[in-house]
Amino acid sequence: MHEPDRPPIPALLTILEHACALKRLPRTGWLLNGVVPCESIADHTTGVALLTLALADALNADWQAQGLERPLDVGRALTLAVLHDLAESRVTDLPKRSTTLIGADVKRCAENEAFSMIVGALPAANDYTSLWREYVEDASPEARLVHDADALEMVHQALLYERAGHRTLDEFWRGHRWHYRLCEQLFDVLRNARS
Amino acid sequence: MHEPDRPPIPALLTILEHACALKRLPRTGWLLNGVVPCESIADHTTGVALLTLALADALNADWQAQGLERPLDVGRALTLAVLHDLAESRVTDLPKRSTTLIGADVKRCAENEAFSMIVGALPAANDYTSLWREYVEDASPEARLVHDADALEMVHQALLYERAGHRTLDEFWRGHRWHYRLCEQLFDVLRNARS
Amino acid sequence: MHEPDRPPIPALLTILEHACALKRLPRTGWLLNGVVPCESIADHTTGVALLTLALADALNADWQAQGLERPLDVGRALTLAVLHDLAESRVTDLPKRSTTLIGADVKRCAENEAFSMIVGALPAANDYTSLWREYVEDASPEARLVHDADALEMVHQALLYERAGHRTLDEFWRGHRWHYRLCEQLFDVLRNARS
Amino acid sequence: MHEPDRPPIPALLTILEHACALKRLPRTGWLLNGVVPCESIADHTTGVALLTLALADALNADWQAQGLERPLDVGRALTLAVLHDLAESRVTDLPKRSTTLIGADVKRCAENEAFSMIVGALPAANDYTSLWREYVEDASPEARLVHDADALEMVHQALLYERAGHRTLDEFWRGHRWHYRLCEQLFDVLRNARS
Amino acid sequence: MHEPDRPPIPALLTILEHACALKRLPRTGWLLNGVVPCESIADHTTGVALLTLALADALNADWQAQGLERPLDVGRALTLAVLHDLAESRVTDLPKRSTTLIGADVKRCAENEAFSMIVGALPAANDYTSLWREYVEDASPEARLVHDADALEMVHQALLYERAGHRTLDEFWRGHRWHYRLCEQLFDVLRNARS
Amino acid sequence: MHEPDRPPIPALLTILEHACALKRLPRTGWLLNGVVPCESIADHTTGVALLTLALADALNADWQAQGLERPLDVGRALTLAVLHDLAESRVTDLPKRSTTLIGADVKRCAENEAFSMIVGALPAANDYTSLWREYVEDASPEARLVHDADALEMVHQALLYERAGHRTLDEFWRGHRWHYRLCEQLFDVLRNARS
Repeated sequence: MHEPDRPPIPALLTILEHACALKRLPRTGWLLNGVVPCESIADHTTGVALLTLALADALNADWQAQGLERPLDVGRALTLAVLHDLAESRVTDLPKRSTTLIGADVKRCAENEAFSMIVGALPAANDYTSLWREYVEDASPEARLVHDADALEMVHQALLYERAGHRTLDEFWRGHRWHYRLCEQLFDVLRNARS
Repeated sequence: MHEPDRPPIPALLTILEHACALKRLPRTGWLLNGVVPCESIADHTTGVALLTLALADALNADWQAQGLERPLDVGRALTLAVLHDLAESRVTDLPKRSTTLIGADVKRCAENEAFSMIVGALPAANDYTSLWREYVEDASPEARLVHDADALEMVHQALLYERAGHRTLDEFWRGHRWHYRLCEQLFDVLRNARS
Repeated sequence: MHEPDRPPIPALLTILEHACALKRLPRTGWLLNGVVPCESIADHTTGVALLTLALADALNADWQAQGLERPLDVGRALTLAVLHDLAESRVTDLPKRSTTLIGADVKRCAENEAFSMIVGALPAANDYTSLWREYVEDASPEARLVHDADALEMVHQALLYERAGHRTLDEFWRGHRWHYRLCEQLFDVLRNARS
Repeated sequence: MHEPDRPPIPALLTILEHACALKRLPRTGWLLNGVVPCESIADHTTGVALLTLALADALNADWQAQGLERPLDVGRALTLAVLHDLAESRVTDLPKRSTTLIGADVKRCAENEAFSMIVGALPAANDYTSLWREYVEDASPEARLVHDADALEMVHQALLYERAGHRTLDEFWRGHRWHYRLCEQLFDVLRNARS
Repeated sequence: MHEPDRPPIPALLTILEHACALKRLPRTGWLLNGVVPCESIADHTTGVALLTLALADALNADWQAQGLERPLDVGRALTLAVLHDLAESRVTDLPKRSTTLIGADVKRCAENEAFSMIVGALPAANDYTSLWREYVEDASPEARLVHDADALEMVHQALLYERAGHRTLDEFWRGHRWHYRLCEQLFDVLRNARS
Repeated sequence: MHEPDRPPIPALLTILEHACALKRLPRTGWLLNGVVPCESIADHTTGVALLTLALADALNADWQAQGLERPLDVGRALTLAVLHDLAESRVTDLPKRSTTLIGADVKRCAENEAFSMIVGALPAANDYTSLWREYVEDASPEARLVHDADALEMVHQALLYERAGHRTLDEFWRGHRWHYRLCEQLFDVLRNARS
């Protein structure tokens, strides 16, 4: 698809445009619970990326005691974190109430297609698509870590919105299941900090 | 500093708190030029991280033709991108007019110290500090790439603000020097898109 | 469903909650084109309702010359206008780029179901569902009028955003088909006002 | 005033412009109590219109038991709801502290004149002016319903702002008098939901 | 009214509360012309105060050549500047379209009464009321200077909003009459900077 | 520096530009504690100026009982209040966490230089520079009053943000030392109003 002597400028522009969409699109779950204005998807992505980095290295510091078969590939985890909401630049951030109606499968298909459209013209398109599938399917220790980081970053933000006065954010604290003991511990600390 | 049997929860909370500060702090250069509201530092970070990823892989697709001695370490580049503005969560985003008065050296020292305070209690603190120094000193091909991505993301955002009507953003287009030919090409395309 | 001696308080609360969601949810098409902040769905609804009222009465003033078989039912048109985006309080405002991926049919089904959930417990639920179907299917002169008003209100808002500097709103002006000659005339006047 | 062969385009543009002003103007009572940003007048209008519709049909479901002499004219009620704050597009939303100083009579005259200026060139101008007078004077069951809906929508919004943390909104809950028993019941439910 | 041994705490709280209202209330003229969000009344007051200070001292530097009979009382001018929009904390910022309907006299009376309510319990209440009358009636060289500064600050802000893309702000540039030649010169420079 | 026959237009434009920067720049301390959006520096300046005026006159009403050696120069106090944050238009509002890293001395030098750049071309530049030094060094009763007013305005704003729900603003209430008994009394009243 990409010929080495023709630099992939249009594909890079596409990435920039979609990164910019992530800056403008709100995390609709907050909006619907009265947080106006609220963080952007890009705001959240940075939080997830930073937390993923810190968690991965913290787990690797004693990976055997943490029950891992091998140290986590930090670069891979970080790539997943940076890409994990990219499809929302086309699909937008569908809140639960919308996903229930549209169907989780339809949403997943839409996000798959969106993801392909966004990265498709890049030289490493196939790699990104594989990584995206790995993330969606929780198919690696790194993907599972990013899912934990995604949820932890959200509850931390909920905690801060609660400290700003919001009293309707209970739903963001419920129903979490953690892949890593360390993440569950961090969640417990955040939950205890609520009261 | 970190003992394996005591998970580094406080250090992780510190990361979350500073990630959240990046969401709230505006990129002051836009504000001072009349873009109100403007993107957050975290918004920008996500843009830089996505672009760094795409650029690194694009360069690696024909690294020899691009004049590289070895393929770029994508994970390392991404780590630098995610960390590159973290110190601003303590120092805030000082615009040029402020940096000139405070002094680039003082600012750098403050950012170094801020960075150490933020990551200092994490197991991989030393690694992050090394990476940060590498970034600040442009001491690796990956660091140089992130500097290019940082500037490209900014001019792309300037282009979009200009499309939203702003006519005072010339300064953001001036004085760039590029480490990579591909980045310069991308810049030229963005600049041509202005008119 | 409703028993006269038990007032439909919960059903009315549901309406209030969904009206409030419309206030908070942005019209994402503007956001994606760089209008930040932009109008809410509720902002738009008021515009459509006022324009529908004025258009209906203007058409009725000489309905025969306008090619109508009977005067428009203004109350019916207004009801359609007020209800026309109510389902978005659950589905959110999916921009074109998202609808294309999710599928227009899926979106329509989701909106049908959302609509039923929102009004379902009200005494007049069946009437509203019929009206909603009428609107979606363009099945009456009143429904067609509201579609025209919906589009006209949008291009007028685009015009005002353009006067505020935005230069990327061409797509909002394209592809309109009008059911009423009067609406087409109004569109022509708005389009001429652009330059 | 209007000749059938000259479509009332300028009058329709006037409606669009004033609808747009309602989108931009804040409900100043919220601002003065620290809700920043707050809903627009147009946001509120959509809430009142949706609630009026639901209330009117709910009352009509057993209008005799509700003490009505005839079923409500839903279309008329909806028209009143859509028009009820239109004059504020010229007068702006004067908070109580301002109205007290300016005088309720002066405010009413200003709103009457504003209303006439906004709708005056429309074919149905006289009808709208009559409706407006009917609303202001509480001169019909429909007008009384819209006044109840106006107040209920406001206290519901107050409730949501309180759930977002605001603790200075007591004044919005005080001094209400209800024309309809159903509305009073709804108010009681909202008030009980505060604690 | 004030007894020396009972410090005027409640009167000072009143001032703080009204100063805070000025921070929250928008300058509605901008809003109605599509500048969303726009500056607060307090934002404007600071601009007027700073400009008044600079203008007063600039005029005093050669007051005879400027046609003044005596040097300006800078402290008095600054007091007028700081107080000049204080009444709007109760009356709100009525745009021209509203003032025309309410009547300039009614507005002035309302502002007089508002001003008295705000400052009335302070020890220097009478002084402030005299100063306010002096400002409203243009009854001193200092009052005339603040009127010029008020208008200049507004057109400068218009210029900056125009540089941010807004194209509907012509009305803010029209109809000015200047009391001071220096102010007229500054206006000419600003006007020339538009094109 | 200034010649009487060449009016100081460029110097006045400089003042206007920096006043406008104060409108756009947020008070970062609020942002970092979750108040988004928050007041501008210019918002705060107006609050300080109004409070300074009221405090100065209140103290002067019985200056001997208040322990003053002479009545306060109100005009001087007001000038200090209006100028007290002007340097932040170049340096930006550095929060404590940033000042600690940059160093209070460096910050002061930067602000001194910024102040000189902003006012340097005005006829009264030397006067302003002296006043600024007087303020920074607390070198007069008027300077001390403005420091008290600066702190009081901040805690009052904190109180209002707390009433809007924020629960993380304790730090803004701590560590105050008051130059005037009246200011301490006002602080006590505000602190008591928290609970």
